[in-house]
Amino acid sequence: MIKAKIIGAGGFGGVGIIELLTSHPEVEIETLVAIENVGNPISDTYPHLKGFCDLVIHPPTDPETEKPVDIVFLATPDGVGMKLAENELKKGAKVIDYSGDFRFNTTEAYADYAGRLGCPTEHLAANLLPETVYGLAELHRDKINQETKLIGNPGCFAVSCLLGLAPAVQSSLITTDSIICDCKTGISGAGKKPSPTFHYPMRYENMNAYKLAGHQHVCEVEHELGLLADKEIKITFTSQVVPICRGIMSTLYGTLTNQISEDDIINIYKEFYGSDGFVQIYPSTAAIGTQNVRGSNNCNIVISVDKRTSRLRIVSYIDNLLKGQAGSALQNMNIIFGLPEKTGLDRPAMYP
Amino acid sequence: MIKAKIIGAGGFGGVGIIELLTSHPEVEIETLVAIENVGNPISDTYPHLKGFCDLVIHPPTDPETEKPVDIVFLATPDGVGMKLAENELKKGAKVIDYSGDFRFNTTEAYADYAGRLGCPTEHLAANLLPETVYGLAELHRDKINQETKLIGNPGCFAVSCLLGLAPAVQSSLITTDSIICDCKTGISGAGKKPSPTFHYPMRYENMNAYKLAGHQHVCEVEHELGLLADKEIKITFTSQVVPICRGIMSTLYGTLTNQISEDDIINIYKEFYGSDGFVQIYPSTAAIGTQNVRGSNNCNIVISVDKRTSRLRIVSYIDNLLKGQAGSALQNMNIIFGLPEKTGLDRPAMYP
Amino acid sequence: MIKAKIIGAGGFGGVGIIELLTSHPEVEIETLVAIENVGNPISDTYPHLKGFCDLVIHPPTDPETEKPVDIVFLATPDGVGMKLAENELKKGAKVIDYSGDFRFNTTEAYADYAGRLGCPTEHLAANLLPETVYGLAELHRDKINQETKLIGNPGCFAVSCLLGLAPAVQSSLITTDSIICDCKTGISGAGKKPSPTFHYPMRYENMNAYKLAGHQHVCEVEHELGLLADKEIKITFTSQVVPICRGIMSTLYGTLTNQISEDDIINIYKEFYGSDGFVQIYPSTAAIGTQNVRGSNNCNIVISVDKRTSRLRIVSYIDNLLKGQAGSALQNMNIIFGLPEKTGLDRPAMYP
Amino acid sequence: MIKAKIIGAGGFGGVGIIELLTSHPEVEIETLVAIENVGNPISDTYPHLKGFCDLVIHPPTDPETEKPVDIVFLATPDGVGMKLAENELKKGAKVIDYSGDFRFNTTEAYADYAGRLGCPTEHLAANLLPETVYGLAELHRDKINQETKLIGNPGCFAVSCLLGLAPAVQSSLITTDSIICDCKTGISGAGKKPSPTFHYPMRYENMNAYKLAGHQHVCEVEHELGLLADKEIKITFTSQVVPICRGIMSTLYGTLTNQISEDDIINIYKEFYGSDGFVQIYPSTAAIGTQNVRGSNNCNIVISVDKRTSRLRIVSYIDNLLKGQAGSALQNMNIIFGLPEKTGLDRPAMYP
Repeated sequence: MIKAKIIGAGGFGGVGIIELLTSHPEVEIETLVAIENVGNPISDTYPHLKGFCDLVIHPPTDPETEKPVDIVFLATPDGVGMKLAENELKKGAKVIDYSGDFRFNTTEAYADYAGRLGCPTEHLAANLLPETVYGLAELHRDKINQETKLIGNPGCFAVSCLLGLAPAVQSSLITTDSIICDCKTGISGAGKKPSPTFHYPMRYENMNAYKLAGHQHVCEVEHELGLLADKEIKITFTSQVVPICRGIMSTLYGTLTNQISEDDIINIYKEFYGSDGFVQIYPSTAAIGTQNVRGSNNCNIVISVDKRTSRLRIVSYIDNLLKGQAGSALQNMNIIFGLPEKTGLDRPAMYP
Repeated sequence: MIKAKIIGAGGFGGVGIIELLTSHPEVEIETLVAIENVGNPISDTYPHLKGFCDLVIHPPTDPETEKPVDIVFLATPDGVGMKLAENELKKGAKVIDYSGDFRFNTTEAYADYAGRLGCPTEHLAANLLPETVYGLAELHRDKINQETKLIGNPGCFAVSCLLGLAPAVQSSLITTDSIICDCKTGISGAGKKPSPTFHYPMRYENMNAYKLAGHQHVCEVEHELGLLADKEIKITFTSQVVPICRGIMSTLYGTLTNQISEDDIINIYKEFYGSDGFVQIYPSTAAIGTQNVRGSNNCNIVISVDKRTSRLRIVSYIDNLLKGQAGSALQNMNIIFGLPEKTGLDRPAMYP
Repeated sequence: MIKAKIIGAGGFGGVGIIELLTSHPEVEIETLVAIENVGNPISDTYPHLKGFCDLVIHPPTDPETEKPVDIVFLATPDGVGMKLAENELKKGAKVIDYSGDFRFNTTEAYADYAGRLGCPTEHLAANLLPETVYGLAELHRDKINQETKLIGNPGCFAVSCLLGLAPAVQSSLITTDSIICDCKTGISGAGKKPSPTFHYPMRYENMNAYKLAGHQHVCEVEHELGLLADKEIKITFTSQVVPICRGIMSTLYGTLTNQISEDDIINIYKEFYGSDGFVQIYPSTAAIGTQNVRGSNNCNIVISVDKRTSRLRIVSYIDNLLKGQAGSALQNMNIIFGLPEKTGLDRPAMYP
Repeated sequence: MIKAKIIGAGGFGGVGIIELLTSHPEVEIETLVAIENVGNPISDTYPHLKGFCDLVIHPPTDPETEKPVDIVFLATPDGVGMKLAENELKKGAKVIDYSGDFRFNTTEAYADYAGRLGCPTEHLAANLLPETVYGLAELHRDKINQETKLIGNPGCFAVSCLLGLAPAVQSSLITTDSIICDCKTGISGAGKKPSPTFHYPMRYENMNAYKLAGHQHVCEVEHELGLLADKEIKITFTSQVVPICRGIMSTLYGTLTNQISEDDIINIYKEFYGSDGFVQIYPSTAAIGTQNVRGSNNCNIVISVDKRTSRLRIVSYIDNLLKGQAGSALQNMNIIFGLPEKTGLDRPAMYP
């Protein structure tokens, strides 16, 4: 059995990977680490885990947390993983970090990202950056494999935009200076910490754009698209929040470089992603919504061509806590341990 | 592999059992029957099933649906199962019916139930009534076993009330003429058919009592409580609907026959249900809500004694589509096929 | 024009009375006092007030707040009004306090209430208690008039229970030891302060009972019912929260003292409340929900007799922020200034 | 008093204008016409109107509905107003139609619109088209005045897009071939008729794009923008639906023709709309959401410049049932009867 440690076990991202791992046939959760509710079984705080995971939460300072494991999930905020990763790697663990700490291979790229977040721009584990891999498996199958030791799990908005845009950019279907990402997220994306903005009465009948000055996920979207296009790309990105819990819908626009039919584009996308993965391609007439991916690791992509204005419009749907976070993390773990990619992710969501 | 047929595959109850069976290690879904969207894969209508269950929906008249199977789930409205059960039983299948058709062992009891629903009171398969079993396993372990062929799966409100009241009534903790069941359900309990009452704008910021003249689930609650108390019991029952999708919270009141502490009652309940089943008992200080059981087959029960008025107050939480419907159905199936009761039901719900 | 000061202007209760007063023909808001967002126009924090009320929020220490006014609304938590009321009364203002500080006429009754809240039980303005009036106009028309100077505005649950039970208790329709109040509230009742419990992802698909050990509103319900019955009354009271913003539904049970028809009870209720007030009486077949009172000062009451168990069941619906708070406050103000009771409250809610 | 008739009184748009008119000081509702619930007071179907509007609903065939009035609101679907308007105009009434029937001055423009809807493209009252006025007062103050007899009230999405784009297009701030309207609506925009798509369980945790092939509101947006730019304009338009009841958020993109600061654009917008109307302009840092306009006739517009990509991004917020429908209708009525524009629209929304 693969032994796992989850650091940041009490947040949505930590609980998300716990839920998945409790029914994963090859993994055993060994250690939970968090800074809240320490000393109690996690199922005291999250009663839905009772009987599935009753492990005690350890504080980071507890020597118990130093026991070596095979895989460490760093379900921690930006700036934490860079302090912890090296120690875990030295003990032989593989590390998957949820934050932006290991999404970039250079200190410059990281500094750009951190600056947008208002975080210190210095990276505390710069020596690890050359070996980290951006953990969007659909784009980096060449680099994610059993040799991989350190993965920067992608941001939720970025997953949604990149999966929607990658085939079009790689195949030069759209001009690279015309890309607009209009993204809408459910509220779980903001995490479990209460705030006035997400207090139920302020939110139940409300939607709004936010961070208009610039969202930090833009960096990785531009960086990854740039790799696909082999040139620098700048996008316009709008983050918006709507009153659902789980789900991201990103509507992605680009001006077509050539006349091309919706069907031809669908074929390009299907070829890019294959037929047996987590990405499913639909025509513009399909009735797809975030509900169809809620609770699953799928990304549903709807292709639409606006002939009147020669624009490609892609609508990309994911569950921000699964394909946008814990699901991708588990998918990455499966790959780097040589397991079938869908292990533990092969169950339909509940509906409705 | 146990071969399963689902009749009424397109409703919430049908989809619910499909979701569960796709990850059940011992069952293979063989046939789907419904009257809508026939001829298409069910995953066309329910895209979240894509890749998990892509079977075509057959109309009831299709000879294909006559192939013998091991288990038939009748996820059909009242009055349908009584027309179909005998044929399936004759072919050797075991049958679990979701409706009230097989919840009673006599035509009189059925007629009382059907009358409240405004349905014809004649039972069309009266000969089967003596052998049917009321499918609430926690109350009828003596009758649900590998010999059982026909099960009337209980109503969602009834599950919630009965699990909350059974130990108290059996142990004569409360006077039998003092029972009040104040029940609140999420909207999925009304099924998938649109109606003005459950049109989103009419419902999102609304809660109300309904069927004040009498809800049909009262019959089975009174009947089962009567068996436990060995005397006739009449209850006051209020059905109410609130804007959540999944979940029933039943607040159950009864006048205590004797002074007794909350702790003693908790022990009586824990002894009744055991520690390894789906029913979990909590003290009045526990922070439990429907969210904790959503997506699971658990029933969470909170015990509270109002000393000032000498009343017992039980708050019972279930997911109406799982423990209240498809989950109980699968639990019953597991038992009558000699499988561990939790097979296919042993995964935590997603949160939040 | 009546000059008004609102202390605690930034909470739901303060904003609620501001909204009402901006369109009240006889009142001018003179001063806003709060402890957050001071120094800025209230419309900066609540943009929906822009153009309607752009007054600056003063801190309590600002001498500006000492200017005499005609009416002071103390939209403040328990324990604040008792420190401020005397000073305002001395300057000639009438005072309406939202908290429990002035809902009782004796220090003993207050201490019972405060104890349940976990507050200090000593009343700091005990000398004012003999003259304060419980501000539920439908029950205390004899005491609320132009002579009234100090009103303790009732609690939201209490309004809902008392309006539902008062005629039955006064007319001895039910036995006084049989009363159960099963109350469900929307989340705005918890105020605007964020908390984990009401963080959107934790609440959108959740309902639960809380404070099972005893809710503070029980005191005033028992006290007022006792006055109507002329004897001590103890009730069982359950507070529950569901994911709507505005609305309380209280389902109220009592054992009938005599056989009586639903129609006769309806007549007793209609006679009690008259036909032109805020309370509207409906038969058990009416389709009423909280949506019908949302945004209005109405209380809708549904009468139902459960003949099988000889119980009266009343379902009472209010908007907790209007009839349960700011609406009742304005109704009280209208009466004590000799204005028609519905002034400023005579506009239908928006729907849906 | 201005006498009003409302045809289509039972839909959201009809009830919306009734709510507004019951508190309008210069209007008396004379007649309600609808095809459902005829013969009963409208307050039987909509209990929140009880005491405010208890008029009986007449069927269209009732001679009673022929009594002349001063203003007729046609709160009817496409294709109905064109059959009824002439008769009302002949009797001397002014007519405001909610549908697309009178939003265009030529049969060609109407045919384009109707075609997209899948309706017959022939206009049955073509003779009236030259005199009809597009009822967005902020754009057509020159044509909406006391001489105006027939108004085509604008579509909800169109109001949102046009108010957001008009100053930019008129001042040539953006290139006319670069405009993208990414629009999100609450569910009340779909009207009161239940459908599977808006059944609560299918919608509460779901968002999706729809009508990707082309939404009918595009026609009027392009037409009106064309008038402002004095050239033909084609836009990309995406309609999306999110689980709120009231509210449209439109995110509008265009490539800047010249470098210009956010502040300068704000000034251009403020000059265009003036400071005392319903349109309020905010900088990109403002925390505005649909909640701030819910229940009011306001349009809140947030200005943002994405310097990195030289794009203007406008976020426009309205209540689709008020500024997007009944509110604009009343605003238009006020103007054409010589009343102050805000009469009956000058009350803040309730919050939260």
